[in-house]
Amino acid sequence: MTQTTGHVGQAEERVRALALAARAAGRQLAALTGPARSALLRDLAAALADPAEREPLLAANARDVAAARAAAAAGELDPARLKRLGLDAAKLDSVADGLGQLAARPELLGRPRLRRELDDGLVLEQVPCPLGLVGVVFEARPDAAPQIGGLCLKSGNAALLKGGSEARESNRALVALMQRALQRHGVAPAAITLLEQREDITAMLALDDVLDLVIARGGHEFVRHVQRSTRIAVMGHAEGVCHLFLHASAEPNMAATIAVDAKCGYPAACNAVEALLWEGGAEAALDACVAALRERGVELRGCDRTRARHPALAAASEQDWGHEYGALVLAIRRVDDEADALAHIDRYGSKHTEAIVAADPAAAERFLAAVDAADVFWNASTRFADGYRFGLGAEVGISTGKLHARGPVGAEGLLTYRWLLRGHGQVASDYGPGKRRFTHRDLEP
Amino acid sequence: MTQTTGHVGQAEERVRALALAARAAGRQLAALTGPARSALLRDLAAALADPAEREPLLAANARDVAAARAAAAAGELDPARLKRLGLDAAKLDSVADGLGQLAARPELLGRPRLRRELDDGLVLEQVPCPLGLVGVVFEARPDAAPQIGGLCLKSGNAALLKGGSEARESNRALVALMQRALQRHGVAPAAITLLEQREDITAMLALDDVLDLVIARGGHEFVRHVQRSTRIAVMGHAEGVCHLFLHASAEPNMAATIAVDAKCGYPAACNAVEALLWEGGAEAALDACVAALRERGVELRGCDRTRARHPALAAASEQDWGHEYGALVLAIRRVDDEADALAHIDRYGSKHTEAIVAADPAAAERFLAAVDAADVFWNASTRFADGYRFGLGAEVGISTGKLHARGPVGAEGLLTYRWLLRGHGQVASDYGPGKRRFTHRDLEP
Repeated sequence: MTQTTGHVGQAEERVRALALAARAAGRQLAALTGPARSALLRDLAAALADPAEREPLLAANARDVAAARAAAAAGELDPARLKRLGLDAAKLDSVADGLGQLAARPELLGRPRLRRELDDGLVLEQVPCPLGLVGVVFEARPDAAPQIGGLCLKSGNAALLKGGSEARESNRALVALMQRALQRHGVAPAAITLLEQREDITAMLALDDVLDLVIARGGHEFVRHVQRSTRIAVMGHAEGVCHLFLHASAEPNMAATIAVDAKCGYPAACNAVEALLWEGGAEAALDACVAALRERGVELRGCDRTRARHPALAAASEQDWGHEYGALVLAIRRVDDEADALAHIDRYGSKHTEAIVAADPAAAERFLAAVDAADVFWNASTRFADGYRFGLGAEVGISTGKLHARGPVGAEGLLTYRWLLRGHGQVASDYGPGKRRFTHRDLEP
Repeated sequence: MTQTTGHVGQAEERVRALALAARAAGRQLAALTGPARSALLRDLAAALADPAEREPLLAANARDVAAARAAAAAGELDPARLKRLGLDAAKLDSVADGLGQLAARPELLGRPRLRRELDDGLVLEQVPCPLGLVGVVFEARPDAAPQIGGLCLKSGNAALLKGGSEARESNRALVALMQRALQRHGVAPAAITLLEQREDITAMLALDDVLDLVIARGGHEFVRHVQRSTRIAVMGHAEGVCHLFLHASAEPNMAATIAVDAKCGYPAACNAVEALLWEGGAEAALDACVAALRERGVELRGCDRTRARHPALAAASEQDWGHEYGALVLAIRRVDDEADALAHIDRYGSKHTEAIVAADPAAAERFLAAVDAADVFWNASTRFADGYRFGLGAEVGISTGKLHARGPVGAEGLLTYRWLLRGHGQVASDYGPGKRRFTHRDLEP
């Protein structure tokens, strides 16, 4: 027992030292000019595209994949995890491309969001700045490390990265490559620090006086565990229970195309759809969806009223509503009307992404106005809920919370701001009834 | 014991019902158009200015003040709290004026912050919306209730308000007045709900599935207690330890004027200054500050090097650094240089408001760039750190956290956003290497 405590204590001390070094390096990163930070990102993109740099990366990844394959063969690893683990030239091209796009996007730091004259010669600015130090725990998908690292570099934040253990060798090689790029630009490599031990997560979550934010990616249970284990704010989503509502005016072909993409494009994704809702009048759209989804091998579970029309469907039970299958299974429910659809979403949705298919713009706008979720879509697949697709460059995660950042979180979600006031000796007691008045005149930022 | 649990359980049930009703009423409020919400605010301002409405308000407040005076005479209440409790025509004028200003400010909801074409006919918007339901616990200062209420109305949020118990009658009258205004505009009065029992705070803090944010105002201990007692995000500040740094180039008269305002204007305020830092070369500025502060009766406590110059000062001990006096006491420390001043602020400051007095713009800009605090000021009193003075209309509180909102928090800090996507049947699997490309073209919001 004493030994365990000592062990945990040692991990905490070690991770605290790493976190403090990362924080200090982050200040160097934030002090770079925007063009210098963009040059660093372009340099990193170039390194990822360079055959000489790629060779050891791909070799490291091949070792991870071989180990994972052996573990899967021994029944110690879910084979589904193997697919995400592999790194190849196309994936590295795509990461390099994303970093280049991030470099090309406008600088985020320093430019005031608001400039306001409080009085003659007393000017207030609200200026974006990095949060400071961000801890990111992510799944065993090695392209995540440079994507998250890139968003941190763009936003001037230091990061502690803890990736899935199956990707250990890949992440080590990728972080080393990022650290060499940091050094070439005069920033201490600690700005991107890799944590490797499982106990490092617990140690990191205890550092509420050092970390500014934790981003948790992974399964429900893991994200909930992180949220329960720390006083640091946690950004992420525990669940992605997304619905597709077929309005009476839904065009059948469009409904089927969207339903297939939203369910089958990548069933394990959090933005995949878990339930289809339809109202009276949408029978043709429902029929088209059922036919198309069946053809793709999706298991369909219907409510009684749905099964009255499609008797071959399995029966849905209460457990099906609000359930994230993460697989080729879809629940289907007939709702009474729009209000009933909204009530179902309010009760069972996870405030991630909700979509309506409707030809009637008024109905669609009512849905867009009423649904309380991070993303609300009209005539588009829920699968568009993604930082890259939204044009954010990439995403550190998708947030289903309402505070700070919501939905796909890119570099902007890693910023806070400071209020800067420049005066000529003004004092507050000179202002008030019968004294000086504030002008409160907004200026061009 | 069983009785206590039953009692707590009853309070939780009662407050949960109030919170759910408030939330539902908030949806009505959020559904009002911007002009309708402005009309509601103007109506509320007019009611506060109406003699017929004022009479019962002032009578209710007089009952609170009489009870508090009796409690103070019996030694059961700190007489300092009496001062904030009184309501008069001038205070009501000022609240009404603030509400009118809030009504006149641009509408916050609905107008996209960002519009982006993802592809032809596929347009993404990031649209501000209310958080939903906010719980605010505030001190016994009755003008706070309509100020906070006004910010919630402007931002479309419902609120549970719990004010200091000494202001019970005043708050009851003020909330009733706000509820009548809500009703006149077709919104259920529950949108602004007053909690009256001390146990209601505990009950409210347990409702992490209903409340979106808690704002805690009051003393350190209370704010820390709230932060420790809930899983709901808490906005506020436990401490306001603000510094004033005299650079070698500081102009002595300006330094003294700012020091007096920052210390003496309202010593109990969180934006009052607690310590003066000076570097070599700032001796004249220091001398001017010491003379002016002494004349105002401020107790000065110096470090050894400060006392070498001003031997009459009391000796500061380690406990003085980082201490929030909330009274006419000021600690003074000689620092080695700018870097030493920054290190002192980094170690002892509470990330609230930090100020430099300097004639040298380069030194000032270094300070503005380096200090990690919500507000960083140059040649201006720390007392400007205030929602009204910043032109936010009023403030629900001042946040020393970095997430969501920082510094004085006005109506903007009570917003979140949703991502709305409008398409024509587009699906994500049509995009990617060798397929359709996103245009990611930003449009005018």
